[in-house]
Amino acid sequence: MDLSPDWVVGFTDGEGCFYVGINKHPEMKVGYQVLPEFRIVQHEKDIQVLYALKIFFQSGVVRKNHEDRFELRIRKLECLLNVVTFFERHSLKTKKNVDFKKFARIVRWINEQKHLTTDGLIEIIKTASEMNRADKPKAAMILKILTQT
Amino acid sequence: MDLSPDWVVGFTDGEGCFYVGINKHPEMKVGYQVLPEFRIVQHEKDIQVLYALKIFFQSGVVRKNHEDRFELRIRKLECLLNVVTFFERHSLKTKKNVDFKKFARIVRWINEQKHLTTDGLIEIIKTASEMNRADKPKAAMILKILTQT
Repeated sequence: MDLSPDWVVGFTDGEGCFYVGINKHPEMKVGYQVLPEFRIVQHEKDIQVLYALKIFFQSGVVRKNHEDRFELRIRKLECLLNVVTFFERHSLKTKKNVDFKKFARIVRWINEQKHLTTDGLIEIIKTASEMNRADKPKAAMILKILTQT
Repeated sequence: MDLSPDWVVGFTDGEGCFYVGINKHPEMKVGYQVLPEFRIVQHEKDIQVLYALKIFFQSGVVRKNHEDRFELRIRKLECLLNVVTFFERHSLKTKKNVDFKKFARIVRWINEQKHLTTDGLIEIIKTASEMNRADKPKAAMILKILTQT
């Protein structure tokens, strides 16, 4: 299956998700880990579209999401940098682009190792908490802890 | 907002819906009316994408769907014939294409006025009942009535 950049943008406008997870991580100096990921979920009948997207982005893993749903998930930093460059060159048309721009900032900050300092992490979590699918109460709680230390 | 054909295909693979409604209609000789429609639903924050699609297809109406959701709905036969021609030239990549092909057959049959004869209507309802979002029990009931007469 051959995918064009515009098809990938249209499909991502419909089905893609830019997400930044924030988890406790005692091994990290700042105590928290930020995990940005790009994800597209499909019913198993369209798993071949996920594999075509994996080839298109030359990255990611196709795995079970939930019940009869599968996902392509891209988490590796160097791969996410490529995803970010792609969607900067080929703009999303929906309001998902607002989320994407925050996601892009976070991925670049992580690449610059900003997440390893408390100030950088605070900035990242603040930006992540403004995203559509953010767990806002959790982000607020972590920000409270980080700004107290 | 300028949309390319490939973007429209990708977005439709994600968000589009090809649907054929079947309703009782005492004024029609065969007693039933078939109503094919192409629909794309979005949250109200992306209503401008629906208007851009309306311009792209040069047809349809943007209307409230449910609560904070809006839809572009195309129902006019000559407009649906254009939609069908578009997606025949620019193939959907997901399994939605299977549904689309049935939808395309039905739209063409209606254009040939097949739905005005009982045999034609039976063929249309049989095809519609095999589609993804079909109300299969309703279709089976109507088919039973039509094949008894």
